[in-house]
Amino acid sequence: MKKPKGKRLEPNHLLLIGFLAIILMGSMLLSLPVAHNSGQDVAYIDALFISASAVCVTGLVTVDVALTFSLFGRTVIAILILLGGLGFASIVISFSLLLGMNVNLSKRLFIKEAYNLSSIKGTLGIVRAVLISSFVIQALGTAAEYFVFRQAYTPLNAFGHALFNTISAFNNAGFDLMGGYRSLTAYQASAVMNLTTAVLIILGGTGFFVLADIARSRTWSSLSMHSRIVILMNGTLITLGFLFFMAVEHLSPLAAFFQSVTTRTAGFNTVDIASFSQAGLFFAMLLMFIGASPGSTGGGIKTTTTFALLLSLGSLMFRRESAAFKRKVGGESILKAFQVLLLSFLVVLFGSLSLLLIEGETYDFMAVLFETVSAFATVGLSCGITPTLSTLSKVVIVLIMFAGRVGPITIATSLKAKSSHLGYIEEQVFIG
Amino acid sequence: MKKPKGKRLEPNHLLLIGFLAIILMGSMLLSLPVAHNSGQDVAYIDALFISASAVCVTGLVTVDVALTFSLFGRTVIAILILLGGLGFASIVISFSLLLGMNVNLSKRLFIKEAYNLSSIKGTLGIVRAVLISSFVIQALGTAAEYFVFRQAYTPLNAFGHALFNTISAFNNAGFDLMGGYRSLTAYQASAVMNLTTAVLIILGGTGFFVLADIARSRTWSSLSMHSRIVILMNGTLITLGFLFFMAVEHLSPLAAFFQSVTTRTAGFNTVDIASFSQAGLFFAMLLMFIGASPGSTGGGIKTTTTFALLLSLGSLMFRRESAAFKRKVGGESILKAFQVLLLSFLVVLFGSLSLLLIEGETYDFMAVLFETVSAFATVGLSCGITPTLSTLSKVVIVLIMFAGRVGPITIATSLKAKSSHLGYIEEQVFIG
Ligand SMILES: [K+]
Ligand SMILES: [K+]
Repeated sequence: MKKPKGKRLEPNHLLLIGFLAIILMGSMLLSLPVAHNSGQDVAYIDALFISASAVCVTGLVTVDVALTFSLFGRTVIAILILLGGLGFASIVISFSLLLGMNVNLSKRLFIKEAYNLSSIKGTLGIVRAVLISSFVIQALGTAAEYFVFRQAYTPLNAFGHALFNTISAFNNAGFDLMGGYRSLTAYQASAVMNLTTAVLIILGGTGFFVLADIARSRTWSSLSMHSRIVILMNGTLITLGFLFFMAVEHLSPLAAFFQSVTTRTAGFNTVDIASFSQAGLFFAMLLMFIGASPGSTGGGIKTTTTFALLLSLGSLMFRRESAAFKRKVGGESILKAFQVLLLSFLVVLFGSLSLLLIEGETYDFMAVLFETVSAFATVGLSCGITPTLSTLSKVVIVLIMFAGRVGPITIATSLKAKSSHLGYIEEQVFIG
Repeated sequence: MKKPKGKRLEPNHLLLIGFLAIILMGSMLLSLPVAHNSGQDVAYIDALFISASAVCVTGLVTVDVALTFSLFGRTVIAILILLGGLGFASIVISFSLLLGMNVNLSKRLFIKEAYNLSSIKGTLGIVRAVLISSFVIQALGTAAEYFVFRQAYTPLNAFGHALFNTISAFNNAGFDLMGGYRSLTAYQASAVMNLTTAVLIILGGTGFFVLADIARSRTWSSLSMHSRIVILMNGTLITLGFLFFMAVEHLSPLAAFFQSVTTRTAGFNTVDIASFSQAGLFFAMLLMFIGASPGSTGGGIKTTTTFALLLSLGSLMFRRESAAFKRKVGGESILKAFQVLLLSFLVVLFGSLSLLLIEGETYDFMAVLFETVSAFATVGLSCGITPTLSTLSKVVIVLIMFAGRVGPITIATSLKAKSSHLGYIEEQVFIG
């Protein structure tokens, strides 16, 4: 039953290699002097870090982006975010489509894996829909934010800020050009800014599959189980976060709502994260860890994974099979959800342990764990330790961001295990 | 397919109620003035805490046990530890046997669940073997430790200390009568003390099932898969902990070995835990979380659960079915292992969050998380915050200890889910 040697690369592996290639190219472009403002010197590790952070749509930064990077550098970052948000597979197909090339079966398989689809039927249509709807949404977002930025900037600068901010929000990247690691704290009271950004984040983090399903179905009962789970979890998590941040961190309703939305993967902030209470930071870690929805620009273990996990615990408690919305949830989904949870848990665990071993007692455990969860869930919030980390720690964070961006989807799209031990007797292990 | 209302209590529920009843009785006995040294006043919450900590064989204490409790009080604590270590089911059967009563089927079912056995055949033999071997091991341990304590105490006091310490070690309770929350730090260099205690801990934490299997089989190839997994995991984890504590905390080989053994559930310490580096504390949390083996006196998610989890990740990585020692590991075991992991994760998560919400910024996040993991895994190590916790936090810790003692075994012995949604179509959920 063994596979022949010299096998072809699987779509999964190509996705990984594609992501890596884009990160490396980005790091080289960001290392060029033309990418920097005059007088700014950027170490290669920082160029690599920013590139990885952009492609993984994380938003953690080791240098002040606004201060350091020239217009060229910022444009490179924006393009890296766009590419990272779309996903490598879509990029390949998009270019093929734009260049009028034939999209062959292996490329369609790509898309199927990248968007976690159950069949390759209609993959081209999906890519087209993704591209067009992304463009329209980001154009509208840019227009809305232009008027906010216009109050403080020249028309050209306002447009630049609005465009960058919209790309960063819709792709859940969380990068900003405000300078001084301030994120959107200056716009804490601006309802237009907060709501536009929040809507972009939610649309980007919901996943194209669900957006298409909503556009097509229009009624709750005709939505797929997947879409219903995503909407239900999104609503529940946003509400919980909103209430928690209001009650525990005493934020205004607008700030609490924005923080609840942005913590789940975008990583903008309108309030100072480092000033949160320990309970607030811990709760934020939980929101970050859960993250956005599959097939979206967001990270984390995902809303549907969380739902499947809760369903499994529920079935244990009530001794019923896992079922929701009058559908049984397949055992394979449940197992994959648990595997995603375990892998994510291990990445955060060994990531944090590595950082603690490298940095010793320099940073609080809370700040280190927060940084790791934020990197893994591609959120980008931080207690402010990123710029002062040692080079080795920066490499660790880059690896965590990469694992967080491609890990869960790789598990989700992995094929079923082969029955390779047919001769073995099955035996249960004593658990607990 | 619904169960009739007014159903009989299941063995699982009786186990819970039994544990609760013993904890409450213990708390009342420890509240009696006769249980206290003269001049010592014990609040009910502290009596409850100590009783729960003893019955759950945890070892966290809110008061100085040696200073506070009289000989009567200490005897009550020792008996609570013995009862907690044996488990409620064995207690019922033991009394029945001692009193010459007939042990009926429902009591045998009890034992089956309590020891996580696959059938009720031979349950009485198991209880007898458990009682006799426990007695012999603890008698030998007391004898060995007597000579260590005799160097500093009168014969009677030395015997008392040796007996209490042996009971506490074999049952993985971690209580001590040294005073001043010093645990065994005074005996850091005593090889006899360290090795006797370590052997008692390992025997107690291995589980009677495996000990019986070893006594019966004598060769590796005739051991059950369960026993092999336990031995393999024990060896690996003790070695890893030993190397880590030597390398990172610069402990002597004896202290590193002892710390590696005791951290996995006993909770004694010969070095000051609060002086550990953050990396050391984090690593200790990982060891605590994994814990001992099923059917033993120890806590945590258990060695076999961890093995099943790693096996599942391995099968994902290599696209093979989960197999070890030429046996396929059943899907049900894997699912239960994941459910134990998730439940444990949630207990630690919401336990820590509750403590943070209650205590605010009084304690470091690290100390709070460490306390929660220690309580959940019934370890009893602490950064020293237990005595100063508020009453509400003490209640939270009591609940965490209880969940940690009975939670994993309840999941492990839960029956298979009923097919109650026969009419539903199965659908996979998109994960990751
Ligand atoms: K982000
Ligand atoms: K203990």
